[in-house]
Amino acid sequence: MAPRPDHPFLQACRGLPAEHVPVWFMRQAGRSLPEYNEVKGDVSILDAVERPELAAELTMQPVRRYGVDAAIFYSDIVVPARAIGFGIDIVAGVGPVAEQPFRSKDDLERLPVLVPEEHSPYIAETVRILVDELGDRPLIGFAGAPFTVASYLIEGRPSRTYEHTKRMMFAEPELFAALLDRLADIAIASLRDQITAGASAVQLFDSWAGALSPPVYEQHVLPHSRKVFEGIADLDVPGIHFGVGTGEILTLMGEAGADVVGIDWRVPLDVARTRVPGKAVQGNLDPAVTFAGWDATRGAVDDVLARNAGRAGHVFNLGHGVLPNTDPDILARVVDHVHEHGRADGAAA
Amino acid sequence: MAPRPDHPFLQACRGLPAEHVPVWFMRQAGRSLPEYNEVKGDVSILDAVERPELAAELTMQPVRRYGVDAAIFYSDIVVPARAIGFGIDIVAGVGPVAEQPFRSKDDLERLPVLVPEEHSPYIAETVRILVDELGDRPLIGFAGAPFTVASYLIEGRPSRTYEHTKRMMFAEPELFAALLDRLADIAIASLRDQITAGASAVQLFDSWAGALSPPVYEQHVLPHSRKVFEGIADLDVPGIHFGVGTGEILTLMGEAGADVVGIDWRVPLDVARTRVPGKAVQGNLDPAVTFAGWDATRGAVDDVLARNAGRAGHVFNLGHGVLPNTDPDILARVVDHVHEHGRADGAAA
Repeated sequence: MAPRPDHPFLQACRGLPAEHVPVWFMRQAGRSLPEYNEVKGDVSILDAVERPELAAELTMQPVRRYGVDAAIFYSDIVVPARAIGFGIDIVAGVGPVAEQPFRSKDDLERLPVLVPEEHSPYIAETVRILVDELGDRPLIGFAGAPFTVASYLIEGRPSRTYEHTKRMMFAEPELFAALLDRLADIAIASLRDQITAGASAVQLFDSWAGALSPPVYEQHVLPHSRKVFEGIADLDVPGIHFGVGTGEILTLMGEAGADVVGIDWRVPLDVARTRVPGKAVQGNLDPAVTFAGWDATRGAVDDVLARNAGRAGHVFNLGHGVLPNTDPDILARVVDHVHEHGRADGAAA
Repeated sequence: MAPRPDHPFLQACRGLPAEHVPVWFMRQAGRSLPEYNEVKGDVSILDAVERPELAAELTMQPVRRYGVDAAIFYSDIVVPARAIGFGIDIVAGVGPVAEQPFRSKDDLERLPVLVPEEHSPYIAETVRILVDELGDRPLIGFAGAPFTVASYLIEGRPSRTYEHTKRMMFAEPELFAALLDRLADIAIASLRDQITAGASAVQLFDSWAGALSPPVYEQHVLPHSRKVFEGIADLDVPGIHFGVGTGEILTLMGEAGADVVGIDWRVPLDVARTRVPGKAVQGNLDPAVTFAGWDATRGAVDDVLARNAGRAGHVFNLGHGVLPNTDPDILARVVDHVHEHGRADGAAA
């Protein structure tokens, strides 16, 4: 069963008026949910991704609990690189770790073209299970953007400084471009696989692009992200483009070809709108505000809604992923509150 | 001996034309220097701070090696809080760690007024040694801004999410304000002590203020940083105000009362100028670009200089601190290059 084309989430992604302001949360499936910890148990994230029934169940949990308007399928941005044999693992408490980081031209051979049915058949299988289960509710597919995935492959582990990544970018720009081009191909193959299997929208996570200045982003990163969006354009599903700390590069990110630009909490939504003219926006509640309880959270939610001022093309979300210690009850109230009080009729646009 | 009042660094801080573009580097004293590791040996940072001869020597090392235009005295932003007895230590590989974080009103009692001659006599002693040794070269004093110090005291360790800090800010705004007010008093006392002992300028490090949106910064943080600058205004030394990822709040930071606003590498310097009208600017070479070697670094240095376009009021610096693996030879060449090629005559202002 396909989701209805006028679902509020899809309407908002297209910049069209919607029955209500749609809501979902980045990392809505995950450690903040007791049922997640219970069902997943000791299975690692990457093992869970490879078990379609389990991955589908973890994807559905927040949909059932929160009544969010969209599901995002349970996976990780390093899954395609891992699937094609670039040794990378997710280490608990650390993040993605590559024992042999990408450091030279020879490493390109460790990144062959992704053939989804061969390398990661479990992805399409999970998507198919979910589309069936979700009924008319859309499923969001996703991929890591070339730069952010490259930063993991090059650094070998999460970094705050991106020393090796920037070294390669500035000292070996051809190699860096070749790597990002390869990763763009991989992202395209992965997203096409997800869309073909039934995903109704996709998000490209360039989580760490905010570490770059606009000229550097424009020269070394934007062309590769644009290639990803161009590579799925014919499939005609809405694309969302997200990163954190991206205030300076929002306009450029908006030019990569997505319909929706994700905004972190640092940029007020009305200000963000001026930087991505013609685009829908997604965001942008500070995920940490939930720790201050419902009254503070409600005030912050109302502020986001007020700054959007009823304009069409607003997907409500956090400004970054759900933090592990988040109280799920607060998020449930956020969904209800946005559904009740948000306006997305475009009357004030 | 006092530094000459028309030293290029002080001229630039005042927004006045200077003989050359002055240069210094945040964290210029530190692990990137072999002589630092040799002299400091196994002494902890906080122990070294309490030994004036050693602290002065560590301060002088980069001055000798690089010929930077200013020294910044060797200390840490948690030193005043530690000096008054708030248990906080710097753990190697981690950062500031407080065994008993600040979590309730009772913790205010752990933050009495700083009496420098009683709590931290070694600070003024170090400054006096340095002023004597530096001759006509200025010494920069510094303090942590109330928000950033508060984040360490509240979280108890470095954080990427500031969960406890934001919880208190949003759920207990009076307590949060009381804490920042107390930390403003401590910063004022520390800065006055350093200036009285001979520091010619000061920098207020609000390193993590970029985690906040403009409305949140303006309401919860700016008043306390402004109090600090007001509390030293009568001493008439230039003030610098710095944080990372602060693109959205640069204008507000400029309104706190500093003469100079520090810019990280994410905001091109010409763009930054438009956000802090009437202020001098400091920055903003990406510290990671040095890993790409001299040619790439020189290109990036030239880009910073070109964006400033010879305007008066530019202190050349990195956009954040020197990274531990930095090659000191590259930084030495940066200093020479800026001195040779930078223009600060204001002709193009």
